[in-house]
Amino acid sequence: MPDILHRIGTTTTPDKVYDALTTVDGLAAWWTADTHGDAAPGGTIRFRFGDAGGFDMKVVDQRPNERVAWEVTDGPEEWIGTHVSFDLAQEDGYTIVLFKHEGWREPVDFMSHCSTKWATFLMSMKQLVETGAGAPHPEDVQISNWH
Amino acid sequence: MPDILHRIGTTTTPDKVYDALTTVDGLAAWWTADTHGDAAPGGTIRFRFGDAGGFDMKVVDQRPNERVAWEVTDGPEEWIGTHVSFDLAQEDGYTIVLFKHEGWREPVDFMSHCSTKWATFLMSMKQLVETGAGAPHPEDVQISNWH
Repeated sequence: MPDILHRIGTTTTPDKVYDALTTVDGLAAWWTADTHGDAAPGGTIRFRFGDAGGFDMKVVDQRPNERVAWEVTDGPEEWIGTHVSFDLAQEDGYTIVLFKHEGWREPVDFMSHCSTKWATFLMSMKQLVETGAGAPHPEDVQISNWH
Repeated sequence: MPDILHRIGTTTTPDKVYDALTTVDGLAAWWTADTHGDAAPGGTIRFRFGDAGGFDMKVVDQRPNERVAWEVTDGPEEWIGTHVSFDLAQEDGYTIVLFKHEGWREPVDFMSHCSTKWATFLMSMKQLVETGAGAPHPEDVQISNWH
């Protein structure tokens, strides 16, 4: 099955990145301002993007400063049952984030779109932790007719 | 085998995008300023990124305003023998670019890095054709300790 893979590095400490991935306020500051729910292990986080809908993510793994993993429990059909994870590591004074969105059944055009869009959102997270300001929806980078 | 997939849309006509993909000057304006060689079908284009090295790409397919495909003939070991392609389509007044970099043998961290980096370079191409100015190396967006 095809996966979406990304790697970014931030010049901040792992706890800052972990905070951006495990708190509703942190997530709202780089992915979508319309983020609600329970970001603790076992909880469900609701990410919404206006008319484009959104995703419900169940938090299936959290290890401080090391790993965050979600299962998609609601959203576009192609996303349901897929898994999103962020693995953190330290390298050359950077906090590295290895990102995976796995479990796609087919490499549809929407997957290609999501791959590019994830990259721009991960860059938004990098900006957030490095400068204090990300670019979450509805201020996100527009990449195409699909936003 | 894992692939890197992306999708962007530009508000320009397909011929502008095709030009950015099939001329040395066009490629130098969004990927790397150090681009040389022969961008015609069967030719080899040499893309260089300073100390980070670079890639030689053989042009294996070109269909005006529709498709461009390259085979990597020299560069990092992980890239040699892989294929890069750009398929163009029209949708909602946008020129869509479906990008693939396929043939990776393993989903190594370097592949994750290249996936994110391709996204930022495709956004550089979008900027180039829409505004006249892209962000090619050495002015490219830095995403991590690996540049």
